[in-house]
Amino acid sequence: MQTPDSGLAACIDIGGSKALVGLVDRGGKILARERYPSPPGVEPAELVRRLGARVHTLAGAAGLDWQRVVGVGYSTAGMMDVERGIIFSSPNQGDWRDVPFMELLKREFQLPARIEMDANAAAIGEAWLGAGQGADPLVFLVIGTGVGSGILVNGRVLRGWNGTAGEIGHTVIDLAGPACNCGNKGCLESLVSGPAIARRARQAGSPAGEDELSAEAVFQAARAGDPAALAVVAETVELLSIGVTNLIHLLNPKAIILGGGVGQGGADLLLEPLKKAVSRRVGSWVDFDGTLIARSQLGSDAGLLGAAWLVWNELVKEIAT
Amino acid sequence: MQTPDSGLAACIDIGGSKALVGLVDRGGKILARERYPSPPGVEPAELVRRLGARVHTLAGAAGLDWQRVVGVGYSTAGMMDVERGIIFSSPNQGDWRDVPFMELLKREFQLPARIEMDANAAAIGEAWLGAGQGADPLVFLVIGTGVGSGILVNGRVLRGWNGTAGEIGHTVIDLAGPACNCGNKGCLESLVSGPAIARRARQAGSPAGEDELSAEAVFQAARAGDPAALAVVAETVELLSIGVTNLIHLLNPKAIILGGGVGQGGADLLLEPLKKAVSRRVGSWVDFDGTLIARSQLGSDAGLLGAAWLVWNELVKEIAT
Repeated sequence: MQTPDSGLAACIDIGGSKALVGLVDRGGKILARERYPSPPGVEPAELVRRLGARVHTLAGAAGLDWQRVVGVGYSTAGMMDVERGIIFSSPNQGDWRDVPFMELLKREFQLPARIEMDANAAAIGEAWLGAGQGADPLVFLVIGTGVGSGILVNGRVLRGWNGTAGEIGHTVIDLAGPACNCGNKGCLESLVSGPAIARRARQAGSPAGEDELSAEAVFQAARAGDPAALAVVAETVELLSIGVTNLIHLLNPKAIILGGGVGQGGADLLLEPLKKAVSRRVGSWVDFDGTLIARSQLGSDAGLLGAAWLVWNELVKEIAT
Repeated sequence: MQTPDSGLAACIDIGGSKALVGLVDRGGKILARERYPSPPGVEPAELVRRLGARVHTLAGAAGLDWQRVVGVGYSTAGMMDVERGIIFSSPNQGDWRDVPFMELLKREFQLPARIEMDANAAAIGEAWLGAGQGADPLVFLVIGTGVGSGILVNGRVLRGWNGTAGEIGHTVIDLAGPACNCGNKGCLESLVSGPAIARRARQAGSPAGEDELSAEAVFQAARAGDPAALAVVAETVELLSIGVTNLIHLLNPKAIILGGGVGQGGADLLLEPLKKAVSRRVGSWVDFDGTLIARSQLGSDAGLLGAAWLVWNELVKEIAT
């Protein structure tokens, strides 16, 4: 068998709207990559068959010898048991229940495979090659349609006892705040997610808030100097700074990396004011100057590269034997 | 040198009002123990000299051969670098700054020594011999004059990059809440600590709130059926349930163990309603039935036994060589 050093990882990252497949070498270089609209909800076996065809085609088009591919890494949203390779549910894929997805990948690709939750994969990617290199603990904070996180402690994903850790979006920071779809009030997600930002803009009378789902419209209006939109951005910074300060007090992370449509797409407006607000809020015992708050360096490749890391670090032994 | 199996750990736990010294065997049995009022703020060298004398006297009184003692474990509140053994500050000891306390202990006792923060030591104790055996992640939630926690992940203390993790008392759950001494509003500590409970009782017009520092008086009044005190207890449960649910969403701990004067002393009033409130609040994706919320089993011995664990698990190699 091909030795890992000259090998390639076949990597797949299925997001809510975009999917990404790629072939990544041992050093994290993406030798081939294809981005396409996320596949519609199909049966797991059918999805895996399509992914197999797509990755093979990608390798062929890039002139990469398929024999070099040593393993498959897969990243997606959902509830899963990473060790056993089972996806319990996956919001992007419709009504899946308890799918042995790792086994399906192994069978389709005839290669070892690993699966990972998207925020965890992105955290791993940023720790390996992005904004969080050498940082531990590391939190990858995804702010988009929802709010979630991937947390690394001592170089490992913090999963909790049952795999549901990282749900920072449903930590409450304002017990009298707006209703969240989880049933509580004032969850971080109900305050700083894309839809929450758009909602607050609407309430503030900003025309940018009319498109219910578009925080980006609010950011555009703010960049153009619209006072109502600027006020919404400032309020978002304050709310987000509470969530980030909570994280710092509880986990004392070395790095907090912002990703997702809001966290990444709005970083030009949010990041510097956020650092100032957190600096003002953190306890006097915290070394805030030594704590990194940064935007994702890998952007939409973070999950793909995290999936590659799984191949190189969790599958290489399996591959070598 | 005595082999560890027949050895004893000299253990010290200095709290805000009570201090505890003890001699603990390999199995966690406390063979001798002395509780006494915490020593007044003295110079570190003087404290260590007194502790040495006290532990030697304790061993002698119990008829335990000092030659069996193989190491020293020390637990206290404060900011410290556990690896280097330096206590940066210790609220119970007055104005200490950057004290090489592990070295002082080694010199006084002529034995290897380890230090640990009190909440972490209690978490370790409960994981070893108490309510959290086999549970990971584990959170020991101290609710007393202040609110803090010790967090174990993959069997190790979660310290963060700079040793300040676990400060759950200063996570905000009510951004419009009462002022906290950290400068923010609505920190968990400002809502459910002993003084906060007494303050809320006072505001509710309960005579039990008149003693500014005594949540215990509020609990006593509640046990006697005082409606105002019962309402304060119910409100405390709701507020605490938000903090505990935040913990569950972020860390998905297998066990959350309540300690401290309020968490332990008020458990008869707080624990069962807390479980119900958290069960109502946690997201549908959380396996709450599999999550343990319990009171400390070791009570005031938790920190002492955590200090003993350090001797048996972190010093034994050092001792054996």
